[in-house]
Amino acid sequence: MENFIYENATKLIFGKDTETKTGEETKQIGKKVLLHYGGGSIKKSGLYDRITKSLTDAGVEYLELGGVKPNPLISLVREGVELCRSEEVDAILAVGGGSVIDSAKAIAAAVYYDGDAWDFFTGKTSYEQSLPIGVVLTIPAAGSETSGGTVVTNQDGDYKKAFGHGGLRPKFAIMNPELTYTLPDYQTACGITDMTSHIFERYFTNSTHVEVTDRLCEGTLRTIMNQAPKVLNESHNYDARAEIMYAGTIAHNDSLGVGRIGCWATHGIEHEISGIYDIAHGAGLAIMFPAWMKYVYKHDVKRFAQFANRVFDVEIDLDDLEKTALQGIAKLEAFFVSIGMPTRLSEVEIDDKHFEEMARKATENGPIGNFVKLEKDDVFRIYELAQ
Amino acid sequence: MENFIYENATKLIFGKDTETKTGEETKQIGKKVLLHYGGGSIKKSGLYDRITKSLTDAGVEYLELGGVKPNPLISLVREGVELCRSEEVDAILAVGGGSVIDSAKAIAAAVYYDGDAWDFFTGKTSYEQSLPIGVVLTIPAAGSETSGGTVVTNQDGDYKKAFGHGGLRPKFAIMNPELTYTLPDYQTACGITDMTSHIFERYFTNSTHVEVTDRLCEGTLRTIMNQAPKVLNESHNYDARAEIMYAGTIAHNDSLGVGRIGCWATHGIEHEISGIYDIAHGAGLAIMFPAWMKYVYKHDVKRFAQFANRVFDVEIDLDDLEKTALQGIAKLEAFFVSIGMPTRLSEVEIDDKHFEEMARKATENGPIGNFVKLEKDDVFRIYELAQ
Repeated sequence: MENFIYENATKLIFGKDTETKTGEETKQIGKKVLLHYGGGSIKKSGLYDRITKSLTDAGVEYLELGGVKPNPLISLVREGVELCRSEEVDAILAVGGGSVIDSAKAIAAAVYYDGDAWDFFTGKTSYEQSLPIGVVLTIPAAGSETSGGTVVTNQDGDYKKAFGHGGLRPKFAIMNPELTYTLPDYQTACGITDMTSHIFERYFTNSTHVEVTDRLCEGTLRTIMNQAPKVLNESHNYDARAEIMYAGTIAHNDSLGVGRIGCWATHGIEHEISGIYDIAHGAGLAIMFPAWMKYVYKHDVKRFAQFANRVFDVEIDLDDLEKTALQGIAKLEAFFVSIGMPTRLSEVEIDDKHFEEMARKATENGPIGNFVKLEKDDVFRIYELAQ
Repeated sequence: MENFIYENATKLIFGKDTETKTGEETKQIGKKVLLHYGGGSIKKSGLYDRITKSLTDAGVEYLELGGVKPNPLISLVREGVELCRSEEVDAILAVGGGSVIDSAKAIAAAVYYDGDAWDFFTGKTSYEQSLPIGVVLTIPAAGSETSGGTVVTNQDGDYKKAFGHGGLRPKFAIMNPELTYTLPDYQTACGITDMTSHIFERYFTNSTHVEVTDRLCEGTLRTIMNQAPKVLNESHNYDARAEIMYAGTIAHNDSLGVGRIGCWATHGIEHEISGIYDIAHGAGLAIMFPAWMKYVYKHDVKRFAQFANRVFDVEIDLDDLEKTALQGIAKLEAFFVSIGMPTRLSEVEIDDKHFEEMARKATENGPIGNFVKLEKDDVFRIYELAQ
């Protein structure tokens, strides 16, 4: 187990009707907030009205910035920064999924920075302070509600980049599983894929003696895979929605990853795809994770065999651990197919045209990944495996 | 899954040599601290010197109150309260295990209260504010390093009572597994028993649809039971000590218990024993948990069968779930025996002389427990089952 520091103060308010507490909670972090959201779905569902009423009842002043896109854009972040400055906003309330929360985080940090918000993502500047953020979560997926990370897209060059700091963890996250009833199946499945990926990125590690976090990862994965068909078959199944929603949070709040060095290569590999093509991040991950696994599993066959056995009940063949490992990867692919995810680039009509460019961009700051260090050629071959 | 609120801001600083950061961390919470500890072991081991040096180097003033006993006494708490007031202490640094931390919590809350510190434990008063607490953990067991709970004994009447509030969670916990190398085996085993018990108290619930937390509980239990023989056979096995230390923290920081109603009956039943007899809390739990399980398992045979299967690999006999359930309880008893714990009151020379009195005290505020509500007679019969 590696030495670690863990600190996560996000207050979770989980369960039915909890969005009625939005005003009360927001009041603890600010008097004048930027209400940040995506498209019209929160207005259609009535959530917008319940939240603005709750804010007003609590005496919290608010102004609005909607329009966050699924891959949130730096252009809107810049707009948000200007708005927060000119209106002297002292907190941000993000109502939505990971994109809205990520956009809010980028605004929150950039408000205190003289240069351009994109500088945080290129490493030109680093975190110093930020506006406090509150969240009403509507899409269980990114785990952004308790993480310190944010991913933003810069259309100028088709870049999608991540940046993170503990100070960006939201102060509170209101999580009502009922708010996820109306998600389209495809979006639900993309979210499920995203949360499994967050666990894989922690699970596949070279750190040794990590039994307790291995088992926490495995138990959470089993739960997600067991509950996934339930939420897809019965959109209003509260209990299954609740399991998925909480699993999505712990998948990314680091509690499953303490004491181990994770490997974020696949997220990076995927970001290059959704940075260029109009494809959901989760769908991209369902395609790229099996490909990455096939490329790297020989690096630690025992770990992949353990994964196959403990997550998918594949019997361990001690005389052929490779077979066991590959059966696990096959089971994972079958799971993604079962929830309606693509598992090949060809299914989403992406050909090899940009493989070279994407592989170059993914590795432009040097090799990526910790489990196996991947150079540009490795990334290229992983794209090929995903064809 | 039940609605829940979860907030745990304790900063964990985990790993080798981390106690050298004590001064730096303490400085964030106070300028003049009460250094609270138990017997002479931290002086013998050199930890005391390292910590006081770290405090001095960081410019933190400190005064001392040692002498915390394994079942911490309200009399020392009162002394600590006086000291904190007269010396205008602004934080407490607890160096030790659960007893020291619990004593620190009681002092921290009572400093701001005009009446007697025991009033918090009888419910005569409630939490309002407290001094901030930092921890250097030396015994993985009670989970007090990130919990808001404290258990204190009042010798005047042989009472051992619990009290808790989120505000009492320590601000930081320094956790170096190396500091646990010198623990006597018996104490290590008592700690292991205590942490398994904290999980049982969350696991055996009437809340339904709790798959994710079930699996987190099961994974943590499996880890503890797998690592326990390693720490007992090789006291200086860093990796095994690290697994046990982290497991002890998550066993009681509520992350395994969110969304479910726990059952603290057995802790109450045991507290009456260690309130009267000079027996370690962990040893009392190793005796009382199997007895409690035998008394209540019929209430939810399926849950006990799941426990037997997922934690101990007992094959589920669908035609005889009771048999499966009882096999799980037998496996648990065998585990406790294997780590040197008593599993019968007779082994620690406790007879039925005080059963009546203990059962009365345990239930004097009404029936205890949530999984099964236990009246005085039930508790009496559980003591009998433990003979």
